[in-house]
Amino acid sequence: MNPNLDVVIRTVDLSVSANVYEFYESLQQYQIETWINNAGIGSFASVGEQNLKRMESMLHLHIEALTVLSTLYVRDYANVEGSQIINISSGGGYQIVGNAVTYCATKFYVSAFSEGLAQELKDKGAVMRVKVLAPASTETEFIKRALDLEEFHYKGVVPKYHTAKEMDGFMLELYDSEKVVGIVNEKTYDFELRDPIYPYASRTRS
Amino acid sequence: MNPNLDVVIRTVDLSVSANVYEFYESLQQYQIETWINNAGIGSFASVGEQNLKRMESMLHLHIEALTVLSTLYVRDYANVEGSQIINISSGGGYQIVGNAVTYCATKFYVSAFSEGLAQELKDKGAVMRVKVLAPASTETEFIKRALDLEEFHYKGVVPKYHTAKEMDGFMLELYDSEKVVGIVNEKTYDFELRDPIYPYASRTRS
Repeated sequence: MNPNLDVVIRTVDLSVSANVYEFYESLQQYQIETWINNAGIGSFASVGEQNLKRMESMLHLHIEALTVLSTLYVRDYANVEGSQIINISSGGGYQIVGNAVTYCATKFYVSAFSEGLAQELKDKGAVMRVKVLAPASTETEFIKRALDLEEFHYKGVVPKYHTAKEMDGFMLELYDSEKVVGIVNEKTYDFELRDPIYPYASRTRS
Repeated sequence: MNPNLDVVIRTVDLSVSANVYEFYESLQQYQIETWINNAGIGSFASVGEQNLKRMESMLHLHIEALTVLSTLYVRDYANVEGSQIINISSGGGYQIVGNAVTYCATKFYVSAFSEGLAQELKDKGAVMRVKVLAPASTETEFIKRALDLEEFHYKGVVPKYHTAKEMDGFMLELYDSEKVVGIVNEKTYDFELRDPIYPYASRTRS
């Protein structure tokens, strides 16, 4: 830990729309170099069996909060040298997985929104960079919370996964890179830095 | 118009979450053979310049209402012979377009959710079919409303488009087909019936 860092922690439920605006407003005093939308929740059930309340919280958090915060940050920092947005998607933002269809659809949104925003800003000659990180299984509290378990251990249960520390390293590689997408290859579990994956068409309004 | 049809029209603002549940409840007296999520709004602006209130309405309508209504219909009808969901996506659900990034991201969600649900239900042996229609430019009130214009004429302005009547025909082709995706080819403007486009991995929970 760098002793010169002044770490400020705020606890906010970003699945509640009003909190999202309030949270962004409350940061006006800071100069923010990098904005990372990392908050997410898992939801593993078939569409018919999914808990609707949990599903709606997931939509608000993964989609609405991420879009509002990205938009506000772009408004304030699009032309500030060195500014970046890194949005956390998932391998599920590029491949749909059964019994996690709604979760994956939210991550398709995150991938398309982030890749699109990255390219839209480049089209405009803005200096801000936008990137998207797509992890596969990573050893965090994600599964424990998604399945409401007392505890959950990855070792010996999840066939392949990265540790949170490994994922931190991948995030830094993406941060330092000129590429837009940092994605874990589902087969090899290697981390790959890539150009945008989804097709994009520029359009300038007259 | 078929004189034997009893057409019932309900006007509901589905961008308001409570209305969505109330609307579905209010249909309990009917046997519903096909559920079409067609409501949508356009939003054309760069991410930084988009109107946040309009953007949030779009997220609620394209994503939240569609997901809640699809889920409730699946719960009631997954095993009813002949039942179908047809969700209306867009060419923008398969290709991101600059100055319509958030709109396209919502349609990526619709495409991934619908393709995923179609395959999840097949995996389970359910009889319900789920399909996704992806139009390109179609002569409706979509642009007029998206751009808040008094009037808008497609002829002579939009280089290529289908009429609403043509799109109705494509919808019927998709309805009658065993394919999951009905999409307008962006280059030829031909309508194509296709298998799911996004990669999908089955997963059965133990």
